Amino acid sequence: MKRHIHTSLVAALLIVPSALIAQKTEEPAPDSKPADSDPSHAKIPDGYRDWRLISVAREEGKIDDIRAVLGNDIAIKAYREGTLPFPDGAVIARIAWSLVPSEENNKAFGQAQSFVPGAPKNGVQFMFKDARKYAATGGWAYAQFGEADGKPVVDEAKLSACFTCHQPAAARDFIFTRYSLSGLAGQK
Amino acid sequence: MKRHIHTSLVAALLIVPSALIAQKTEEPAPDSKPADSDPSHAKIPDGYRDWRLISVAREEGKIDDIRAVLGNDIAIKAYREGTLPFPDGAVIARIAWSLVPSEENNKAFGQAQSFVPGAPKNGVQFMFKDARKYAATGGWAYAQFGEADGKPVVDEAKLSACFTCHQPAAARDFIFTRYSLSGLAGQK
Repeated sequence: MKRHIHTSLVAALLIVPSALIAQKTEEPAPDSKPADSDPSHAKIPDGYRDWRLISVAREEGKIDDIRAVLGNDIAIKAYREGTLPFPDGAVIARIAWSLVPSEENNKAFGQAQSFVPGAPKNGVQFMFKDARKYAATGGWAYAQFGEADGKPVVDEAKLSACFTCHQPAAARDFIFTRYSLSGLAGQK
Repeated sequence: MKRHIHTSLVAALLIVPSALIAQKTEEPAPDSKPADSDPSHAKIPDGYRDWRLISVAREEGKIDDIRAVLGNDIAIKAYREGTLPFPDGAVIARIAWSLVPSEENNKAFGQAQSFVPGAPKNGVQFMFKDARKYAATGGWAYAQFGEADGKPVVDEAKLSACFTCHQPAAARDFIFTRYSLSGLAGQK
């Protein structure tokens, strides 16, 4: 179950429970106002598909996808400067696709070797950094949106699994994905 | 040999031979001035690592890498609007890495399934569009820079293989890679 739930090491299915957020509002607001009524982390960030590339990965097993991890400007800057923990406002996105053979490519290569993205898969996931607001979950809110309907996945049963799984990366502020350099000197 | 040379379907090792370029200079310049003496396509474009993501892929076989394909603003705009052929100034970049198991991720997942980028591999490749200047090779110049030394790969023997291999994608202006949507409505 844990494996099924945790469809990404980058950002899993956790939506911070409103109960936790209510304890961590920016202002000492009255508890009667649920902080999760319109939480920024439950919205798809505008223009995230244009964010810069952090890295890529291939997940086999039940997840079975190829994925790209993108970061907003705050996240990219922190990655490149080695800033830990990530500053508030950093957002990391994970897009994934099924991995399918490319007949066209294979024909050009003369052998079966090429796999390319098929349909979007496993939703689009985000991690939103706010050290205070999401202190109960390491300073990050986790969110996932269905690739078919764009709706946020909210399932209390999935909440604890995400933060738990990310514990091994605690020393890197709970982020598994490392920035992938191109190898060219002077090129980030 | 062809397979070895052609380390990418996106952009292979072709550097347009100076002889061809001399026939296709912007101005009817004297042949005595080699157009390839300082060709833009033999320079690594500034800031290419910040370009937006077109797609990703996995190549097995001898190539054996995971790769990301990025585009400059002109290329991305053309992809999204379905503009063919690509306008002059479009540049497409291909970065690749070895694909290695992530022990850290696998431990978190509880099984071996996660593969992440290792060292940069197979150079960094570009395709530069200039319909007139590179008319002899379909309007594109192909370039590759070594991931270790950043030096352009120039090998006359590799020139014809690139353009030849890209022929099957002639209907898409010789570009194999398709733009990968995230799946979220309203998100490019």
